Amino acid sequence: MWRNCVRLARRGLGRGAVLRPDPTVSRCGVSKDYALPNSSWSQGMMDLYSRFLEMCKDGTWKRIPSYSNSVDHIPGKAFWGVHSKYQPQLWQTINMDTEGVGFEYAMFLNPSEKRMVCLFQPGPYLEGPSGFAHGGSTATIIDSTIGSCATFVAGRVMTANLSINYRNPIPLGSVVLVDSKVDQVEGRKVFLSCHVRSIDGQTLHAEATALFIRLDSTKSLQQQMSCQ
Amino acid sequence: MWRNCVRLARRGLGRGAVLRPDPTVSRCGVSKDYALPNSSWSQGMMDLYSRFLEMCKDGTWKRIPSYSNSVDHIPGKAFWGVHSKYQPQLWQTINMDTEGVGFEYAMFLNPSEKRMVCLFQPGPYLEGPSGFAHGGSTATIIDSTIGSCATFVAGRVMTANLSINYRNPIPLGSVVLVDSKVDQVEGRKVFLSCHVRSIDGQTLHAEATALFIRLDSTKSLQQQMSCQ
Repeated sequence: MWRNCVRLARRGLGRGAVLRPDPTVSRCGVSKDYALPNSSWSQGMMDLYSRFLEMCKDGTWKRIPSYSNSVDHIPGKAFWGVHSKYQPQLWQTINMDTEGVGFEYAMFLNPSEKRMVCLFQPGPYLEGPSGFAHGGSTATIIDSTIGSCATFVAGRVMTANLSINYRNPIPLGSVVLVDSKVDQVEGRKVFLSCHVRSIDGQTLHAEATALFIRLDSTKSLQQQMSCQ
Repeated sequence: MWRNCVRLARRGLGRGAVLRPDPTVSRCGVSKDYALPNSSWSQGMMDLYSRFLEMCKDGTWKRIPSYSNSVDHIPGKAFWGVHSKYQPQLWQTINMDTEGVGFEYAMFLNPSEKRMVCLFQPGPYLEGPSGFAHGGSTATIIDSTIGSCATFVAGRVMTANLSINYRNPIPLGSVVLVDSKVDQVEGRKVFLSCHVRSIDGQTLHAEATALFIRLDSTKSLQQQMSCQ
């Protein structure tokens, strides 16, 4: 089920790459875009998705695709140019799971507002207290949405701080809107905030702030995160 | 892969239930304890596990088992006494995944210090930036460890705030020690802190603070989280 998290994480992408309009296959023509409707999506999820697609027509919003590996997103090579010993296994296993059981989501970017929203429908694998999403799954979808937003503004980034206030638990199978925006950029630091609300806007499920650090591809991840 | 998160979450348990010494099966005699060594554990993970087991001998530490459903932990019924429509699917799917690809972990409790540690070996499904654990997986293991610690002190709890500083990324396949403790209890509020370090103690991967709210089983989750 972490497959989707991996896909989310792998969206830490070059700007141009994420803004291709509504593709269903990657540029190599074989990868599946996982952020498209499937039979597990509820009517509420479909309606919200359609609403955002409609808002894409005048260019205000852009749908962000999600592929299963970074090669589809990042011109050149993988995120760090370093292939871990686990990658071959990862690529073999990412397509094993079933639609609807974990993270069902779709992201949309509003470039002028520096805002990224994610429609999120948590499945049963994400259960924490009975019937509700685990706090860790909420943290994951927030980290991924807010991180994608930071990437749009600053390029390659890494989470330095994430602070979440959990206000109301998210029922499994419900649809929530994860709405993030960049508040400020100071040098390599990107400050963002995020709200997670029900689709009718009446229930605030969580609110978060985050600090991301823009990365320098000539330095190791450890070096850069150690001297924030 | 969220199976393990679900198991972790389902440890929000009655005190007595989690303190049975080192069982390999639950009281119903059929469930598997997932927080036991398996072939995916590295030598470092095994060594650390053995060290903590040794410290359990005089009763200072207690190994915390992990079963795949709450019935094994909680006397009586499931966590909320409310069965979501997803539960049957959940129970059918939790054992599908492969050892070593996601959250490999074991928790130990030091009751007198109000401290819970988790030995954690992240697998390839948890990948964020290439070769390293996703920030969301780190948040999940912290939330689960710190939540289990809060449960020991206060009984049923729910995360209200989680703030994480990410200091150094966690390499996939490495072993880290998630070390949490209760700092303060004020009425229904339980304040905790947590550090995630390499097993040699030399690398600080993350540090976190959290606020958990003790729950009243006569009220709904929504009611209680809304009026923290």
